[in-house]
Amino acid sequence: MARTASLSGFPEWLPEERLVELHVLDTLRRTFELHGFSSIETRAVETVGQLLRKGEIDKEVYGLSRLQDDEDSAAKFDPHALALHFDLTVPFARYVVENAGYLAFPFRRYQIQKVWRGERPQEGRAREFTQADIDVVGDGELPFRYDVEIALVIAEALNALPIPDFLLRINNRKLAEGFYTGIGLTDTAGVLRSIDKLEKVGPAKVAELLKEELGATDDQAQAALKLAGIRTQDTSFVAQVRALGVTNELLEEGLNELEQVIAAAVLHAPGRVVADLSIARGLDYYTGTVVETVLVGHEQLGSICSGGRYDALASKGNRKFPGVGLSIGVTRLVSRILSQDLAKASRSVPTAVLVTLNNDESWGAAQDVAAKLRSRGIATEVAAKAEKFGKQIKFADRRGIPFVWFTDDDGKHQVKDIRTGEQYDADPDAWTPSEEDLHVRVTAAR
Amino acid sequence: MARTASLSGFPEWLPEERLVELHVLDTLRRTFELHGFSSIETRAVETVGQLLRKGEIDKEVYGLSRLQDDEDSAAKFDPHALALHFDLTVPFARYVVENAGYLAFPFRRYQIQKVWRGERPQEGRAREFTQADIDVVGDGELPFRYDVEIALVIAEALNALPIPDFLLRINNRKLAEGFYTGIGLTDTAGVLRSIDKLEKVGPAKVAELLKEELGATDDQAQAALKLAGIRTQDTSFVAQVRALGVTNELLEEGLNELEQVIAAAVLHAPGRVVADLSIARGLDYYTGTVVETVLVGHEQLGSICSGGRYDALASKGNRKFPGVGLSIGVTRLVSRILSQDLAKASRSVPTAVLVTLNNDESWGAAQDVAAKLRSRGIATEVAAKAEKFGKQIKFADRRGIPFVWFTDDDGKHQVKDIRTGEQYDADPDAWTPSEEDLHVRVTAAR
Repeated sequence: MARTASLSGFPEWLPEERLVELHVLDTLRRTFELHGFSSIETRAVETVGQLLRKGEIDKEVYGLSRLQDDEDSAAKFDPHALALHFDLTVPFARYVVENAGYLAFPFRRYQIQKVWRGERPQEGRAREFTQADIDVVGDGELPFRYDVEIALVIAEALNALPIPDFLLRINNRKLAEGFYTGIGLTDTAGVLRSIDKLEKVGPAKVAELLKEELGATDDQAQAALKLAGIRTQDTSFVAQVRALGVTNELLEEGLNELEQVIAAAVLHAPGRVVADLSIARGLDYYTGTVVETVLVGHEQLGSICSGGRYDALASKGNRKFPGVGLSIGVTRLVSRILSQDLAKASRSVPTAVLVTLNNDESWGAAQDVAAKLRSRGIATEVAAKAEKFGKQIKFADRRGIPFVWFTDDDGKHQVKDIRTGEQYDADPDAWTPSEEDLHVRVTAAR
Repeated sequence: MARTASLSGFPEWLPEERLVELHVLDTLRRTFELHGFSSIETRAVETVGQLLRKGEIDKEVYGLSRLQDDEDSAAKFDPHALALHFDLTVPFARYVVENAGYLAFPFRRYQIQKVWRGERPQEGRAREFTQADIDVVGDGELPFRYDVEIALVIAEALNALPIPDFLLRINNRKLAEGFYTGIGLTDTAGVLRSIDKLEKVGPAKVAELLKEELGATDDQAQAALKLAGIRTQDTSFVAQVRALGVTNELLEEGLNELEQVIAAAVLHAPGRVVADLSIARGLDYYTGTVVETVLVGHEQLGSICSGGRYDALASKGNRKFPGVGLSIGVTRLVSRILSQDLAKASRSVPTAVLVTLNNDESWGAAQDVAAKLRSRGIATEVAAKAEKFGKQIKFADRRGIPFVWFTDDDGKHQVKDIRTGEQYDADPDAWTPSEEDLHVRVTAAR
């Protein structure tokens, strides 16, 4: 586990580490499908024009060019040039617009894919990493209830992973923007950007920013900071906001929305969700619910799952497609699980049984035994050479295979658990290892 | 299904098409794991130096450069520059060398990932596509038996897919090269390259090539063509080769190896394998077994699964890592399945049940019903709005959800199969749909 990637920012796992990642991916997929989300994948490349469509982006993009192409590649910012996607939201928005005629709305999809960013690699930040996104997107409108549902689905998905406690920190842009407007700060985006720096620079510095850059009075700055200081695991944040004495229609709408999310979470995902009015999500273009997720005890890792509501995830002429979604940083999570030994695979290979060879001619018969075991879902390998049994057992041991199978010249079958040394007669048409040993299991270290 | 990709050569699937692809991927994974292959993934990028290491390659490579980087990108062929991998063999070889100290040899791995080639897109040839590879790699040596095993595993994997009949066409480089040497043709690589054109240009033209480019006599050319004409579903090819009267040590070794593969296939994968002595695999650097696979009735699609034995898949100083492996063209297969309606998903979404709402306040209770169903593995959605039941049923119908769930104000539960109209009382703690309806099934059209 102390290996370093041979290319900085491009992590690769050993087979036993990959088992942990597969477990995480399988668990997410199962949860998403149980909630009726459809799988899609989009191509890894988008046109540069599509990726930079929103103008100002803070992501570093990898452009593509064919090595064997003689053309001058000066045309890097050619909008038709190809580049690797840096998230799954931009590609999903394009996919929805292109395939709108073939999709049933509200369309719920999950998408688990790699994304690339040419950033300076650091802990928790790779250049190639896997994201697992869920979104629900509507045609024209999307009931607010989906904001509530998405939060519950993600809480359930994260809860099924072998990770420490986590906490979804949820806020609402309408609430924040309505409040800022209500106290007379009109550059609400500017205020959000300053508030977003709260954890990094502290309240004094943020107050300074608000006053210097946005012309806030001392009272306005203090009010904005008071709002950002509110954090409750139940709906009591509503009363706390009201106590600040600000009235604004948008604020009311935001309060009502956030209250619905938190009230549902108290019932269906107790202890997993907090109304945290400091959450801003900086540059991103959310319009309502915003979410970040902290792994308790690993706060410095950054958010492991973020997202929110967009009024216009995508549009096609006059047709708008509002969406709400969340994105789990799978590689960030798996890196942490591995580096801190938070979870472990029960063995290092899928194989449960090695069928040994009595002599080189018995390979065909051994294949028949293996086929019978596999037909009951038991992962089985056959030895390649009729070496001494000690050597064949050692081979299994070295690969982490728990059972070896023997068939003697008279066709008598025995199986040996090489962990305990126990050996007993077994019928290839009936023998099955315990449920514990049948498949690789990944469990959290406690 | 008549949609065209918005970027030529970069196919994307609709959700119901993706279900077919997922089924193919899941089936391959299950088969590979049942045979004890470990999953690994490698990063999508390699250094240009690594990709072009073997010198002459016929693949078009996509290079990467950071859009926001000001550097001149003239250094395209800088060996340290990054580029997207064009197959999974080169990255696997690097992975083995880098991690040799952490792997147990013979190391058996499967790897299912996207690869990219900047080629002219055409039917069966995309710029981004998924490959599913299995390889066994040894440290120093690798028993020949793995050549036999790999062929059987792939036959079993393909056999489990919803595709028409297929045929693994297997040859052996030692057999071919030994034969050519035995008849006095020393540029065996040149002969292989000419024989590789047999299907495209026909025997007369190949004879001409052999004579003009390689200085073969008419007899030599005819002998090479006779060898290439041998094709048997059993081991009778051995006698047919011997009848050509050529003796050579390498030829004998090749005959013996190919005989072992075919003999095992006759027993364990009857009808799936043919000894086809025309198979050459052109430029690629195989040293023994070579395989191509044809989908019967879809021959023009090209090989859907290819590979073979390398004496040195990778090397590290004096240490050699021989390997044998096969690679399935998943995207090529799935494209064909979809375009020809060879298989279909039983429904278009994972969801089995929509829990309807009696009124807007019943959403929480509906979530509780849904949670109970999900706890038994039943994929369930909850309606977002308490619309008229007719509308809620229509919503389920439009999305392809087979069952809707009703809970009346007295807490009485009923479930309706909207395909048959049948409606009956059901207990959220006990009701389960038939095995057929529990999960999406993908079945071959017959």
